[in-house]
Amino acid sequence: MNAGERRALRLAVFQYQARDEQPNDRLDRLAAALRNLGREAVDLVVCPELFLSGYNIGSRVAELAEPPDGPFGKGVAGLAREYRTAIVYGYPELDNGRRHNAAVCFDSGGRLIANHRKLRLPNGYEQTHFACGDGLTFCEIAGWKIGVLVCYDIEFPEAVRACALGGAEIVVAPTALKAEWSFVARRMIPTRAFENGVFVVYANYAGQEGEFTYLGESCAIGPDGSELARGGSGEEMLRATLDASLIASARAKLSYLADCGAIPRA
Amino acid sequence: MNAGERRALRLAVFQYQARDEQPNDRLDRLAAALRNLGREAVDLVVCPELFLSGYNIGSRVAELAEPPDGPFGKGVAGLAREYRTAIVYGYPELDNGRRHNAAVCFDSGGRLIANHRKLRLPNGYEQTHFACGDGLTFCEIAGWKIGVLVCYDIEFPEAVRACALGGAEIVVAPTALKAEWSFVARRMIPTRAFENGVFVVYANYAGQEGEFTYLGESCAIGPDGSELARGGSGEEMLRATLDASLIASARAKLSYLADCGAIPRA
Repeated sequence: MNAGERRALRLAVFQYQARDEQPNDRLDRLAAALRNLGREAVDLVVCPELFLSGYNIGSRVAELAEPPDGPFGKGVAGLAREYRTAIVYGYPELDNGRRHNAAVCFDSGGRLIANHRKLRLPNGYEQTHFACGDGLTFCEIAGWKIGVLVCYDIEFPEAVRACALGGAEIVVAPTALKAEWSFVARRMIPTRAFENGVFVVYANYAGQEGEFTYLGESCAIGPDGSELARGGSGEEMLRATLDASLIASARAKLSYLADCGAIPRA
Repeated sequence: MNAGERRALRLAVFQYQARDEQPNDRLDRLAAALRNLGREAVDLVVCPELFLSGYNIGSRVAELAEPPDGPFGKGVAGLAREYRTAIVYGYPELDNGRRHNAAVCFDSGGRLIANHRKLRLPNGYEQTHFACGDGLTFCEIAGWKIGVLVCYDIEFPEAVRACALGGAEIVVAPTALKAEWSFVARRMIPTRAFENGVFVVYANYAGQEGEFTYLGESCAIGPDGSELARGGSGEEMLRATLDASLIASARAKLSYLADCGAIPRA
């Protein structure tokens, strides 16, 4: 399919107000947000990291772990079908006794089409509860190839480069970014889009969770580094329309993907 | 040597007003700028890309090419000795009939300690006149390990990562960045420093050269992404003092260099 003819992807980013609540409450709030959007209003909704459980909840994160088709997953799959949209969200994955910090994608038919395990875990809390993933993850939504990362993954240029060289046109990353790391949201995430000529979607929390204050500032960035949508510091459903022709025009100006093979590695 | 005990590196960045002039005029203007700084005032001065010749001068760039110890090089080496500072600048290098877009470093004794050939040339003008380089380039100044890149090189995260994994604490890049690419100077260059926990020094032109308008906005960025110095849109000698302990503190917070090996490649 010629990218110029492909229809634009209608994106929503659910910047979620952190709260101390149960998975079922989160499912209810997602359902309400989708109801607000309306049926068939968007092609893809991206939610934050560990959306099922919350991020900063100590060892409860382990107790709430489930397989991708667990009760919460089934609930989200049902919403995806009902509202005819793909949904990506982070959750603690239980896999034969091992746990991963993962992100799953259900398509608009409610089918599980991707499950990405966070590649590299930051020191501390996450390393206590989760095992690292070891591979890239791709899926297709509305004719677009999507690469799925989780939070810290996207801070590595290697990860986004690998997604782009693997054909991803959009890289999505559920995250849980604290307010002190505004550099990442404001400068690094746009750079990841720009240096690969891909769309980047970064879905963060807002508000407070225990001693954590989240930055908000979720975003959708174009392949030329432009900010298509940028959240504030509160709960918000961001919207953007992604035009596939922007990928070709960014890459025609700056051929990073074609040229990067010439750069020597350490 | 313990980084905490090492003395700070006193840096100057010569953001040079582009002009239609001869190499000797450029040497005179560099000498005047160094006189203004004073003897032993700084450890390192970084000048823009193709500083010997100017950047946007068509095929004259080929006629002006010289070996690193050519007449212009000898002149800069003399200034380095006189003012007791290392100097990095870009020039068209002549090497057995081949030409490279290169950057040379003379130490404070006037000795040639590095010559970096731009790894990847943008389409057009540069590919007409120059051949690509093929390796990383390091040198040592005042006990600091420096990686040398030229312009487009630093837009590749692979190049800066390779310098950092090779031990560079400061990555310097003479450049010739047009005003339309402000994204690179404002977001990407700080990201290169932040994602590697290194200092990054980016020396650009200001003003007009033929139909090119340069951005200015040269900068020195700390390993935590902070802007230690940032140029405006005119000629300027930026100053910054680089504190080696900032490298360790940035890397203690974000262990990108230690963790990046776990990220799968495409």
